[in-house]
Amino acid sequence: MKNNVNRELPEDLMSDLHYQPYENTEIGNPDIQRVAPKVRVSTGDDKLVSSIENVVKENVKDGMTISFHHHFRDGDFVFNQVMRVIIDSGLKDLTLAPSSLTDIMNDMVIEAIKAGTITNITSSGMRGKLGDFVSHGGLKNPVIFRSHGGRARAIEDGAIKIDVAFLGVPNADKLGNANGMLGDAVFGSLGYALMDAQYADKVVLLTDNIVDYPNTPASIKQTQVDYVVKVDKVGDPDKIGSGATRFTKDPKELKIAQTVNDIIVNSPYFKDGFSFQTGSGGAALAVTRYLRQAMIDNKIKASFALGGITKPTTDLLEEGLVSKIMDVQDFDKGAADSMHTNKNQQEIDASWYADPYNKGAMVDQLDVVILSALEIDTNFNVNVMSGSDGVIRGAIGGHQDAATAKLTIISAPLVRGRLATVVPEVTSVVTPGDSVDVLVTEVGIAINPKRTDLIKEFAKLPGVPVYSIEELQAKAEKMVGTPKPIEYGDRTVALVEYRDGTIIDAIKEVKD
Amino acid sequence: MKNNVNRELPEDLMSDLHYQPYENTEIGNPDIQRVAPKVRVSTGDDKLVSSIENVVKENVKDGMTISFHHHFRDGDFVFNQVMRVIIDSGLKDLTLAPSSLTDIMNDMVIEAIKAGTITNITSSGMRGKLGDFVSHGGLKNPVIFRSHGGRARAIEDGAIKIDVAFLGVPNADKLGNANGMLGDAVFGSLGYALMDAQYADKVVLLTDNIVDYPNTPASIKQTQVDYVVKVDKVGDPDKIGSGATRFTKDPKELKIAQTVNDIIVNSPYFKDGFSFQTGSGGAALAVTRYLRQAMIDNKIKASFALGGITKPTTDLLEEGLVSKIMDVQDFDKGAADSMHTNKNQQEIDASWYADPYNKGAMVDQLDVVILSALEIDTNFNVNVMSGSDGVIRGAIGGHQDAATAKLTIISAPLVRGRLATVVPEVTSVVTPGDSVDVLVTEVGIAINPKRTDLIKEFAKLPGVPVYSIEELQAKAEKMVGTPKPIEYGDRTVALVEYRDGTIIDAIKEVKD
Repeated sequence: MKNNVNRELPEDLMSDLHYQPYENTEIGNPDIQRVAPKVRVSTGDDKLVSSIENVVKENVKDGMTISFHHHFRDGDFVFNQVMRVIIDSGLKDLTLAPSSLTDIMNDMVIEAIKAGTITNITSSGMRGKLGDFVSHGGLKNPVIFRSHGGRARAIEDGAIKIDVAFLGVPNADKLGNANGMLGDAVFGSLGYALMDAQYADKVVLLTDNIVDYPNTPASIKQTQVDYVVKVDKVGDPDKIGSGATRFTKDPKELKIAQTVNDIIVNSPYFKDGFSFQTGSGGAALAVTRYLRQAMIDNKIKASFALGGITKPTTDLLEEGLVSKIMDVQDFDKGAADSMHTNKNQQEIDASWYADPYNKGAMVDQLDVVILSALEIDTNFNVNVMSGSDGVIRGAIGGHQDAATAKLTIISAPLVRGRLATVVPEVTSVVTPGDSVDVLVTEVGIAINPKRTDLIKEFAKLPGVPVYSIEELQAKAEKMVGTPKPIEYGDRTVALVEYRDGTIIDAIKEVKD
Repeated sequence: MKNNVNRELPEDLMSDLHYQPYENTEIGNPDIQRVAPKVRVSTGDDKLVSSIENVVKENVKDGMTISFHHHFRDGDFVFNQVMRVIIDSGLKDLTLAPSSLTDIMNDMVIEAIKAGTITNITSSGMRGKLGDFVSHGGLKNPVIFRSHGGRARAIEDGAIKIDVAFLGVPNADKLGNANGMLGDAVFGSLGYALMDAQYADKVVLLTDNIVDYPNTPASIKQTQVDYVVKVDKVGDPDKIGSGATRFTKDPKELKIAQTVNDIIVNSPYFKDGFSFQTGSGGAALAVTRYLRQAMIDNKIKASFALGGITKPTTDLLEEGLVSKIMDVQDFDKGAADSMHTNKNQQEIDASWYADPYNKGAMVDQLDVVILSALEIDTNFNVNVMSGSDGVIRGAIGGHQDAATAKLTIISAPLVRGRLATVVPEVTSVVTPGDSVDVLVTEVGIAINPKRTDLIKEFAKLPGVPVYSIEELQAKAEKMVGTPKPIEYGDRTVALVEYRDGTIIDAIKEVKD
């Protein structure tokens, strides 16, 4: 069975898991019956507890689905504390359904898999040791990778039914009113965790900072929370920032950023009231800086900036160059602090951000998005999940979701070291080429042939050579040669959902 | 069949509607499966429409349940506009499920009943012509009266399934992000309407003020809204304030307020971090003023004030005498404006406010509440629904819900004109005597015998005579005599739910 981006899918598995192959990017107007949690009624007076053990003992049973958020990123002290207790309690056959998995969690997840505690995983991605472990067949059942919007959809329509959510927060009152903005380990928006808080049957907050009742603003509300567990420390503030927020000095990245800016500024979308998502990473931050200058020069203001937010973007808000920030996640402390002080920085949950099965998500209103790529192929399909050795080392994040923007730009170097970024066929398809409009590299751009309007628009941009994607691929191949094909085993170790829940790719076990 | 407050209930009707008789005020720890809406997926680009007719035609079908909120109170221009279209479209057998009904809606509701358009009603209450019409048998099926918390519970567990909600707002953007704080017809908190926005299958906003996208703060979110209808005017700002926010000069009311304050200040609950709900009405505002002085004199600050909020309460917030206001509804423009400017005034929905089937509602944390009464009987049962002539002329509001406070004070004059307030048996039981602690009248107080602690506490309060409730009833009867019994017909015109969904009383048809 092949899907519409020409990927071979495992028929038995697809059938067992009731999956349909990916067809196209259209969402249409289906009627979706949402689901709701089962609520244990309480006055709320006995929520405050000090033992993770008791909470696990009373609430987690074999076969259940448990969840976590990844807003602490590599400063997370919550996941490992809770998983330690869960493994030691001898629980089996759990499904792990976090918003994503970060490196600090890897050892513990591998231990839990080996112990039989975790037998299923759904996540936005995984990296490092864990990606390696899974890619070599360490987990029997295939991992299900979902975008942030796809996870929201799956939670809302019941495909992911969270039994118990363990959510770390930098503050909470005794009944569970909490936000991500105050305390030692702040991360700003609780966007991804808000889904778990709303839909899990049992919600367990962990915090090192019990504050006076009632705590406001209450991003998570007492009506959603069953337990508030006091722990010593929820996170390491220094490691919460993604670290990718330094301004790049790499000439190649600066060249790409400059070209991305040229594309945006010369597009029909660059006008008063436009909207954008730039994300994090060196090139993205440089784009934000160039864009700032272009907005000032052209007297243009943006209606909103979206997505994972960084300080350069909150600076635009302060300057009045952006009217609103719609904030599902903050990538640095500057952005997190700004959410507390600037009322125009609105916290949004992952559903509002990107659920395709919604009455309108923010991504549906997006004019311009800049996205990265591990690989992009001659059909503009993008891979942000697997290395060119076939090993899982990435995350979908909001990639598929934001690619629905009116102008989706992939910014990527032609090659990285001895590896081509522009390839004949990507190792894994995460985002279909149909939703990608322009590839920007350091040598020039390629425009998706179906965007005849943009081909015309960008034909004679000074200093921006236009190539076909095949030409860029050939240039890359000429620089680094043709890699040896990856040797895969027979087993499917992961399925990649498109944002609508169809399967856009299957990832096979790699052989050493 | 009699329930535990000795009210005769109609057996057939109870059985047909699957109701249980009221037993007691205990809620316990049941597991409640919540429900969720069916969502019509859309990118949101076609929400903005100008015709109520088209929205009604495409979405409202015979037999459906439709809802409205009552935050505009008697300044509401939305209800009558929508109902005009619905009646004229010839729709039949609708259930009307607003958060409450105000006088400005009465003529239209009666017309809709006579036309067969509306055949069922659930509401917090009704007054004037409509109460009279229903009490005289104008509606075939019994009205179901629910408290604000009870309505939230019923929406959340599916007892009320709203097909289409029509919600007026003073501002909205083209996708439906809206709040109650900015525009011509502001009312502040959207607390009751937030339930409809979250749970109705179809959500229609009506506004006279389309603002730039994205509109924040978004109390109602684009992910909840199907249509945004532009209308000329949503409300009359001058009539949105409840009018009951003038400070009383009535010596009787001032005496009662002074005594209420004495009771609070001399109770064990008056200490730093206490919480209270005073509500609106002349005596309540006077209580707030006295309480302010007592807090200053005793160097005591409150952790939160709850409920319907008035400017005297937001003044306490400004002064720092109250740390937080938890705001489900604002009774005047001062309170509404304050919600926009003071971040410690947190908007809460009706579930958070008072849903008894919750993981802790605000009312469960309440120390002191002052509530009014049309009648209170010698079992401390309170009636806020029927006149002493048996005619419906009131609303439960949050009465049953807030009566769960640690100290529930009923403030009421012994008599009103030629009618006793303290009676042998109330015309309708709305709030069970078991949840009432102290009755304060202008001649003295009565303490619920089960509160032996308070009897001791208040035994020798200077200037506060303590009576038994029977003594107060006898005093009232001596002043105004014994009224002629009401002549009822056989038909049940309304059922009064207790907050847990059991039936606490049935209201019979009155004969002229």
